[in-house]
Amino acid sequence: MPKIVNHQHRREEIADSVLQLVARDGFNAVTMRAVAKESGWSTGVIGHYFEDRHDMLIAALRRAAYLQAAQFKSTRTNSNNPLDRLEKLVISVLPLDDRRVALTKIFLFFYAEAVQDETSREEVAEYLQNWRRVITRTLAEAQSLGLMSAATNPDTAAFHIVAYADGLASQAILDPDVLERMRANPEPFINVVLDSIKR
Amino acid sequence: MPKIVNHQHRREEIADSVLQLVARDGFNAVTMRAVAKESGWSTGVIGHYFEDRHDMLIAALRRAAYLQAAQFKSTRTNSNNPLDRLEKLVISVLPLDDRRVALTKIFLFFYAEAVQDETSREEVAEYLQNWRRVITRTLAEAQSLGLMSAATNPDTAAFHIVAYADGLASQAILDPDVLERMRANPEPFINVVLDSIKR
Repeated sequence: MPKIVNHQHRREEIADSVLQLVARDGFNAVTMRAVAKESGWSTGVIGHYFEDRHDMLIAALRRAAYLQAAQFKSTRTNSNNPLDRLEKLVISVLPLDDRRVALTKIFLFFYAEAVQDETSREEVAEYLQNWRRVITRTLAEAQSLGLMSAATNPDTAAFHIVAYADGLASQAILDPDVLERMRANPEPFINVVLDSIKR
Repeated sequence: MPKIVNHQHRREEIADSVLQLVARDGFNAVTMRAVAKESGWSTGVIGHYFEDRHDMLIAALRRAAYLQAAQFKSTRTNSNNPLDRLEKLVISVLPLDDRRVALTKIFLFFYAEAVQDETSREEVAEYLQNWRRVITRTLAEAQSLGLMSAATNPDTAAFHIVAYADGLASQAILDPDVLERMRANPEPFINVVLDSIKR
């Protein structure tokens, strides 16, 4: 009997290896050969799942977005306090570990590509819109519990918070000053978000 | 007598043409031929000033940064009110006209490159540090005039404001929802900055 291979699972496993490579060495390090080495599969197997380098980078982008969405979901399950969740949602995108370094780096690659390519731009815009939706929902809940000023529009505030968190994540990758500050004391970076909606 | 050519001036003129191309068609549109057509010079003249496509993109990055610095300087000259200047400084980076669309797009290209290339990363980090320095100076002045809470650290606030403005500029290029909102009413985007330091 032939062995049953879970192709979806194997694709994800290889995408995880691509993300590991991106976190450690950047997206230029992503080649069939390097991904084969990182994942422990042969280049033949990798070639079966991915057409080329760009195909692997897209898989890594989607995997990073999927892992991020799972993170959003677990935040929702683990706390009833929406402000506590808002804090965790912001922290979950800041590049403070390998998963989040890979997330930011792969998004920086596709942000540049989105300037040129409408398909990439649409995909990136969709992720940004989903992210804002999660934040808007959390803020609306905070407001209904009286934890946020009634004068603040959750939808508008979500635009600000997502722009801030996104800029912060990118700059932490680009400028060690930002990363060091964030690592030494993330509190002011979180407080600026919380303060912006409480009053 | 041979004609005296101002090489520095001609380089800048060509870099401006590169920025025009980037604003209109993105950085993939930057080729020797396209820049020759855009600037009205022959590809021979372009080749005299720039080695290759990447060389032209670097010139465009530096030109965009120079024009942005000139903008910062004129803001300083044109108003004595530091909060008024802070508002103009934030608006000056948002992609609401060709100059600023080109600025954001060329930076998105080099943000991605900075993930891979240490020289680009250092250059990008230096621009971010300069930008924060301008904001910090403006905030310190606002504070000395009693226009900003004495409890707010200008240096820390500059980190937040620059992250926010940068994220906002990128997202306006990536997601039409952000650009439309900003165009329809830039006030909430500015107010969130002013509110964050006033109280």
